[in-house]
Amino acid sequence: QYVTKQEFDAYKKSQPEVTWKGAPRISSEDGKFQFKVRGRLNVDYDGIDQDESITGDPDVSSVELRRARIGVEGVVFYDVAYKFEVDFAGDNTSVKDAYLRYTGLPVDITIGNFKPYNSLDELISGNYITFMERAAFVEAFRLDRLIGLGLSYDENKHWTLSAGVFATTPEGDQTEFYEDGTTFSSRLTVAPINEKGKVVHLGASVRQRDAAGDPRNDAENLFRYRARGADLHLADRFIATPYIGESDTFWGLEGAVVLGSFSLQGEYSQNRVEVAPGIANADPTYTGWYVGANWFLTGESRPYKNGVFGRVKVKDPVFDGSGGWGAWQIAGRYDVLDLSDQADKITAGGVVTCSACGEQVTWLLGVNWHLNDYTRLMLNVNQSEIDGGVNDGAEITGVGMRAQVDW
Amino acid sequence: QYVTKQEFDAYKKSQPEVTWKGAPRISSEDGKFQFKVRGRLNVDYDGIDQDESITGDPDVSSVELRRARIGVEGVVFYDVAYKFEVDFAGDNTSVKDAYLRYTGLPVDITIGNFKPYNSLDELISGNYITFMERAAFVEAFRLDRLIGLGLSYDENKHWTLSAGVFATTPEGDQTEFYEDGTTFSSRLTVAPINEKGKVVHLGASVRQRDAAGDPRNDAENLFRYRARGADLHLADRFIATPYIGESDTFWGLEGAVVLGSFSLQGEYSQNRVEVAPGIANADPTYTGWYVGANWFLTGESRPYKNGVFGRVKVKDPVFDGSGGWGAWQIAGRYDVLDLSDQADKITAGGVVTCSACGEQVTWLLGVNWHLNDYTRLMLNVNQSEIDGGVNDGAEITGVGMRAQVDW
Amino acid sequence: QYVTKQEFDAYKKSQPEVTWKGAPRISSEDGKFQFKVRGRLNVDYDGIDQDESITGDPDVSSVELRRARIGVEGVVFYDVAYKFEVDFAGDNTSVKDAYLRYTGLPVDITIGNFKPYNSLDELISGNYITFMERAAFVEAFRLDRLIGLGLSYDENKHWTLSAGVFATTPEGDQTEFYEDGTTFSSRLTVAPINEKGKVVHLGASVRQRDAAGDPRNDAENLFRYRARGADLHLADRFIATPYIGESDTFWGLEGAVVLGSFSLQGEYSQNRVEVAPGIANADPTYTGWYVGANWFLTGESRPYKNGVFGRVKVKDPVFDGSGGWGAWQIAGRYDVLDLSDQADKITAGGVVTCSACGEQVTWLLGVNWHLNDYTRLMLNVNQSEIDGGVNDGAEITGVGMRAQVDW
Repeated sequence: QYVTKQEFDAYKKSQPEVTWKGAPRISSEDGKFQFKVRGRLNVDYDGIDQDESITGDPDVSSVELRRARIGVEGVVFYDVAYKFEVDFAGDNTSVKDAYLRYTGLPVDITIGNFKPYNSLDELISGNYITFMERAAFVEAFRLDRLIGLGLSYDENKHWTLSAGVFATTPEGDQTEFYEDGTTFSSRLTVAPINEKGKVVHLGASVRQRDAAGDPRNDAENLFRYRARGADLHLADRFIATPYIGESDTFWGLEGAVVLGSFSLQGEYSQNRVEVAPGIANADPTYTGWYVGANWFLTGESRPYKNGVFGRVKVKDPVFDGSGGWGAWQIAGRYDVLDLSDQADKITAGGVVTCSACGEQVTWLLGVNWHLNDYTRLMLNVNQSEIDGGVNDGAEITGVGMRAQVDW
Repeated sequence: QYVTKQEFDAYKKSQPEVTWKGAPRISSEDGKFQFKVRGRLNVDYDGIDQDESITGDPDVSSVELRRARIGVEGVVFYDVAYKFEVDFAGDNTSVKDAYLRYTGLPVDITIGNFKPYNSLDELISGNYITFMERAAFVEAFRLDRLIGLGLSYDENKHWTLSAGVFATTPEGDQTEFYEDGTTFSSRLTVAPINEKGKVVHLGASVRQRDAAGDPRNDAENLFRYRARGADLHLADRFIATPYIGESDTFWGLEGAVVLGSFSLQGEYSQNRVEVAPGIANADPTYTGWYVGANWFLTGESRPYKNGVFGRVKVKDPVFDGSGGWGAWQIAGRYDVLDLSDQADKITAGGVVTCSACGEQVTWLLGVNWHLNDYTRLMLNVNQSEIDGGVNDGAEITGVGMRAQVDW
Repeated sequence: QYVTKQEFDAYKKSQPEVTWKGAPRISSEDGKFQFKVRGRLNVDYDGIDQDESITGDPDVSSVELRRARIGVEGVVFYDVAYKFEVDFAGDNTSVKDAYLRYTGLPVDITIGNFKPYNSLDELISGNYITFMERAAFVEAFRLDRLIGLGLSYDENKHWTLSAGVFATTPEGDQTEFYEDGTTFSSRLTVAPINEKGKVVHLGASVRQRDAAGDPRNDAENLFRYRARGADLHLADRFIATPYIGESDTFWGLEGAVVLGSFSLQGEYSQNRVEVAPGIANADPTYTGWYVGANWFLTGESRPYKNGVFGRVKVKDPVFDGSGGWGAWQIAGRYDVLDLSDQADKITAGGVVTCSACGEQVTWLLGVNWHLNDYTRLMLNVNQSEIDGGVNDGAEITGVGMRAQVDW
């Protein structure tokens, strides 16, 4: 007796579907459920000349696991998606994306720990950023994940709009503060051209946030602003403000172009800080901007979707059978962060000293070798110049190397 | 040439079976192996008026990831099951269920970190409890996971019996103590009626435990007892004893009824403490009890199995295609914890002061919206009154909200 | 209409392949991708008489989760493999294997956190070691995972060769030190006989390492050497050096024989330490060695591959249907660690005192019951004698028990 097509089709329909996205994504045929394990490893080496004669900080020559994450993502019953990922780098535990999302409406609703809607560089996944570290202002202005609720629309090919409200929690320890601050964030992106290999991206975003507080003693978890030398993670920080801000307002403009294997990307941002009255009578405006270019020698193109760049599809991956060369990308960036505004006024308040409130200008050159869609070796050669503050005139020069895999 | 039924059946048998339980449960056809990833996210907001005029503690308005877990469960070769889950909420690491279990005998044998056999409310999974937090006595009497060995019988529909011996380890740090204490725990449940939508549950459990010690200097990790205001996780604690107990004996009675979509649940418990002789000549008995009721407006019923309540099957889940409304449940609870016994005698010992050894009476009202079997939004409105101790007369009023997904 | 063989074969090819290795290993039919979740639990009890009259340390009676790990391993595109596993025992986070590996060449290239190539006992997975803890010198000489780059050749049945360069990072905290030290490691193994049930293994390895440093103030993260009493994890340490070494050189010889269900295993190692000049004018040589034997009463044999021993295949696993008895193994080991060399000279330097720089000789007896390939119960009865130093003459006697499952 033979098997009929009907029987066979019924069986096929009953089986889960497995799609390989690094790790397998398993889906039920009826679309109700989906599940995938995810994770990533970044193994880094940084060698940095920290201009000890000026800064007092000796050279760095050190390795680290920059990122070491395990997580999951999935769908439970059609419209409720979730994502949860934890980083264990340095034997520390740090929750990254941890949210549920209702996708059954034109506007997605996200609740949990996730990135507020600011800055193209911040919103591109760490797996896909062009350089080893993001632009200096991203760290300085703390455009990082918060717990909150967000609405986002990304179903049109040519624009996205998103807005959210988040809790401003102190770094590290939220238990000491009774009242979380409030962070509002919103972003609009427009892509008048969005074709394969031909993209024009424009974007703007704002963020307004208040510090967390303890009404019992009028204490606040004030904001500070700082960034690492040479845009490298193991460098020390040569420009930095003290804890000063009780609220601040960020706005940023984004632009990017993809033309075949060539791509330009730049952002300009300002962060206006209201210094706590007890500290000083000042409201400095800090500025960060960068412009970068990158080119795939091997013909790949940066894929663009939903207002960010995503995973590069390698045309000719490396493996022993075929001898492909993978994808080779070269890139450069000019990155400026200026924390010098009203430094004198802040110091004049007599409570804190703005002695390191300077400007950092960084040149970066990078080479990325994508062995395949999920594996990348990176080399960065960077130099920062410090202007103003106690480290005035220092030149921080470093080389960074990374081996990256994700699944 | 066509495929025969025999060939087809042989192929089908050779393939793993995938059952969707949020995440997929993968089983080998021969029953030897089984595996599933599991986890959960609870995103909470608590807003609490802590009656600062009396307690000195200001209002709370704060978010947190209340639970953020990843884990696995499975079977290796027919009879050996395992479960392992870790919580990363607050960027901390906390091992939850972590055990292996031999299931090849009528009585299951469990070894590892798991819940001792006390209290219905404690033993119901956090995914399925009716309110955002369990009854106050569960935290106060620390009916939490311990490392140990347990025997449990649950193969009869109408009763379960379980008993175990556990190591009493200090909270947080076990390395300072040379001798773990011993905890004995046992529970019997009877369900004279156990049908779909019609359940009568009765239960009783006991626990006896000794504190961990350091024989070198006669030091002990004494027990203390305390609970949070308004049964909310981000509230402060307004009744609490100092570290006093060198051993204690808990006993509790449980009752629950399900009648269609209506359900009642209550427990009464006492914990008799032997205060360390060096502290005071006292042996107070602390009491905790609650009674609660809940009702599914949408017709669902609380499922009962093996002496606990489990996952609610939502009749008409929310998703864009069908416009189902999910399951709506309303609930109320009256929750009492009395830590006032012999407070004067303990203070009279002259070593510690039992200044916050009072009673807390809490009213809770809750609404739960189950979008589907794995997703739930919760709203609790709670009020505690404190009677006795330094916070006598305080009224702690709070609202809690949770978005929950598990897989 | 019936299904043709061609259609059926095409379908079969399109489906992922699932192989059960505890947890399922999912592979794409084309060999491009592979994925498996992995993990393990070790639930331990140690009872130890620490000879308090001499050592001052009281008896231990305590449980712990000795290992509690979740991880993943997989392949992304043919030749790039990865493995990442984290341990959460004791509610701590500790990254274990965390690497990517290029396997497309005869010599594998590994980058990340992994074990340097020293010592058979260290390189055998903790799932497969014969006793609950490895030989004392493994801990004393810190032959543990480091971040680095390694090359390994293991495609010949009769020999393996591996070498790597690693960063010597301070235990616990790498952020305080600007310059990682350098560790070189290399190992050669030869198996003139390598058949099922008949193996002769010979091996030799070396390691040279420098301490991490902080050039700013000439500070170094000096090495110390120490081991736990009775080769049990919850025992105190009765021989230990202070922080003394600025560099050291390890070499070790390995030998092992398998004859059916009988097996012998032994190692001899020396670690020559260059004491930091500021500490003392000394360069002691510490010695560790052991010899052990084990026998499967039930006829199993230790499997050998790539220069290490692996997972035992249980002939007649325990499960209710068949009444198999599992695999029973008995084992003994004589384990010596001598940290006494030049103790006087080190103390004479006047900076540190080498008061516990003695020798520990340990007898171990073990019984292992493998319920199946993935589950093992262990019992160890061990006794150490301390010779020299402040604990001279102490006898540390202990019993250890473990329930182990991995997936």
